[in-house]
Amino acid sequence: MLNLSNFFKPKRIAVVGASRNPNKVGHVIFKNIIDGGFDGETIPVNPKTHNIFNRISYGSVRKIPRKVDLAIIAVPAQFVLDVVRDCYKKKIKDVLIVTAGFSEIGEKKLEDELRDFLNKKKMRCIGVNCLGIFDAYNDLDTLFLPSYRMERPKPGRISFVCQSGALGSAVLDLAADQGYGFSKFISYGNATQVDESDLVEYLAEDENTKVICLYIEGVRDGDKFYKTMKKVSKKKPIIVLKGGLSDEGQKATMSHTGTLAGKKEVYFGVFNQANLIRADSLKEMFHIASLIEKESFFDDGRILVVTNGGGYGIVSTDNIVESKNLEMAVLSKETSKTLRKAFPKTVNIGNPLDLVGDATTHRYVTALEECVKDNNVGGLLIIILYQTPLITTDIVNVIGEFRDKTDKPIAVISTGGEFTEVLSERLKEMGVPVFGFPQEAVRAIDKVAEYYLKK
Amino acid sequence: MLNLSNFFKPKRIAVVGASRNPNKVGHVIFKNIIDGGFDGETIPVNPKTHNIFNRISYGSVRKIPRKVDLAIIAVPAQFVLDVVRDCYKKKIKDVLIVTAGFSEIGEKKLEDELRDFLNKKKMRCIGVNCLGIFDAYNDLDTLFLPSYRMERPKPGRISFVCQSGALGSAVLDLAADQGYGFSKFISYGNATQVDESDLVEYLAEDENTKVICLYIEGVRDGDKFYKTMKKVSKKKPIIVLKGGLSDEGQKATMSHTGTLAGKKEVYFGVFNQANLIRADSLKEMFHIASLIEKESFFDDGRILVVTNGGGYGIVSTDNIVESKNLEMAVLSKETSKTLRKAFPKTVNIGNPLDLVGDATTHRYVTALEECVKDNNVGGLLIIILYQTPLITTDIVNVIGEFRDKTDKPIAVISTGGEFTEVLSERLKEMGVPVFGFPQEAVRAIDKVAEYYLKK
Repeated sequence: MLNLSNFFKPKRIAVVGASRNPNKVGHVIFKNIIDGGFDGETIPVNPKTHNIFNRISYGSVRKIPRKVDLAIIAVPAQFVLDVVRDCYKKKIKDVLIVTAGFSEIGEKKLEDELRDFLNKKKMRCIGVNCLGIFDAYNDLDTLFLPSYRMERPKPGRISFVCQSGALGSAVLDLAADQGYGFSKFISYGNATQVDESDLVEYLAEDENTKVICLYIEGVRDGDKFYKTMKKVSKKKPIIVLKGGLSDEGQKATMSHTGTLAGKKEVYFGVFNQANLIRADSLKEMFHIASLIEKESFFDDGRILVVTNGGGYGIVSTDNIVESKNLEMAVLSKETSKTLRKAFPKTVNIGNPLDLVGDATTHRYVTALEECVKDNNVGGLLIIILYQTPLITTDIVNVIGEFRDKTDKPIAVISTGGEFTEVLSERLKEMGVPVFGFPQEAVRAIDKVAEYYLKK
Repeated sequence: MLNLSNFFKPKRIAVVGASRNPNKVGHVIFKNIIDGGFDGETIPVNPKTHNIFNRISYGSVRKIPRKVDLAIIAVPAQFVLDVVRDCYKKKIKDVLIVTAGFSEIGEKKLEDELRDFLNKKKMRCIGVNCLGIFDAYNDLDTLFLPSYRMERPKPGRISFVCQSGALGSAVLDLAADQGYGFSKFISYGNATQVDESDLVEYLAEDENTKVICLYIEGVRDGDKFYKTMKKVSKKKPIIVLKGGLSDEGQKATMSHTGTLAGKKEVYFGVFNQANLIRADSLKEMFHIASLIEKESFFDDGRILVVTNGGGYGIVSTDNIVESKNLEMAVLSKETSKTLRKAFPKTVNIGNPLDLVGDATTHRYVTALEECVKDNNVGGLLIIILYQTPLITTDIVNVIGEFRDKTDKPIAVISTGGEFTEVLSERLKEMGVPVFGFPQEAVRAIDKVAEYYLKK
């Protein structure tokens, strides 16, 4: 395993290409690291200026009089190798190169030379053509995207390894806005040297990471990928989305990250054998992650649907029946009998358990407490439509407490405007996964179940 | 065609079961109609009280001394038929019955009697077991859901015919929050008499309705359904979602709206032959509707993807290639040449047209203006990731103006937090359809294209 700790826990960073000009990438990176609250030292390297933000700027990393753990390189492509050579001389073994303009625009030779040097000198490099690193736990943020344009997520349990920069940042921005918690985000671009397998292997040991999301376009070392993923997925779930599945998409990956996307069937076969969770879309990737982050480990496919909206119950039932690994739980006779006694005759005892439009919070409590005891029920999908008048807002506390008491996995579906949003937010804060629609909930649960059933 | 205008444009409404007790459905309906700003007269009918909200309450509709156009009935099931008889005597031909407790709980005889009477007397009835009507243009709102729990949408071009009440209201609430505009929403429940076909036929003539969304569980008169849908879909697109596709789901429809869901294959065949747009989920239903509402009539499957995020371009490409009716447009040599001259070499000329991470607003303008002239391009999917620093916020004005100038359909994809949301909102206000993720955009475009190609 590569030791990548200097990338995530450096004490002293040199930013080569740091600049006073706010339009330069080197300026934004330098500023973001300082603004982000990184607690080590950040040193600008730029021969054309003497200081940046009141910090002495050096003409080369070799002139820095102190030990440096990590160099972040943001100079034009033709100068990158020279800077890397300087780093080697300065005994900086770890470099993060954001610079683009290598194999992705046909400059394969330039990238090969760089790789050869890095390998020969046993250096480690993330990049080229990447956005770098965001670590929510130590406030290290090399992303060169202004924070007013892109929110940074709070500390949490998801890590995201992403070959594409802009894609990663857009999704991270949304995820932050929606309250997802992250450990690390790594945009690794062309994977000139350190690749997706190295990063996933490193995250396997990261105690803050509970689930790994992975967006890849091309994998250079398929054997390494398979072995690494198979090993790591036994320990932590890995959710993967593959870009460049179609012929046209593959062509585009070549000019994006300089990697060959390869055959769809081969990839899907490998994902399957390595027990990776394959997401069909970016959105689904984070739906799946939210279940695992919130410890709703659906490992038993027998799902009970509890609802106060008949139509939602029916649509959820359709989704469960057409899923791969889930089925509708059959309530035991005992449970049915107890419920029949407890509820008015308009309530439909069965699965879906339709508490109907005049359901009260109390009716939910009775239903959940009875059903969770039923051995025929593997997990609960709870639909709460807050539009109906008799549901009180304390239902979110009730569900939150219920979740803490039970070992069975649960997920909630609620759809609506502001009133609903406020209550759903509160539920999420209490650690309950909440979805907006039946289909997205059921698909995510289905894929989580598949992972745990195969594990 | 049934004349349903008294349901949507009544001058005088009687609310039978109106009550001073805020926990009664009749109270909420009565209050909502008044609060909603309905400009006709609303008369309470309740023998147990003399006045409600300072309006004289009558013991029976027969005692109202003025002509009444519509009766809304919210009394217990066993009294419904008596009230309907009174309505007939009072020459009220149109009744909306919200009361539940008929065939959906096994009381089939009660519902059959009611239907027989209605038919015999040539009355028209929406319901039973329904939520009623919301009309954004004349402020008629019979929904018995408090407005703080459920937002009402602004006037617009979508109408939604929904067999389920809670499902409809939840989705309407969300749609309102997201800025969708509606003409009419009708929750029709058990379809005791007026059914989905009658309602769709009526909406075909509604000048405010441009696209019809339809959630159905069961259809009683299949022949009527097929003929009506086939006729109306030639005039206006109808997007349909069917609940109760699975065996388990079908069982649930019986106890929800008292209708038999029927074979999935039969329904899908009918939808296909009638050129209905079949949505796979509630979410997709409104994604499709938003394209049509915003007049992005994708009627040519050759799509150009313009992006500043390579990964998003690749994922969109994969989605387009795997779609049924779309393909990647091939830019003409002329366009390619012009673009090659206009852009730096890092820009990838092709499809996806990757303007890369340092794309400026100006680069988008050049790209769009050149590409839209290309006869090989049928429609444009424009990805804008606002996280990248050189995009200025006036890009939304640029895109808005571009949309007004061109006849070719466009759609935008943007993902992100607050900064992105604000800009996406602005774009939507300017009439541009905006999606959060590639997959949902492409799937919606694909289904719209299928409709127009078959039409």
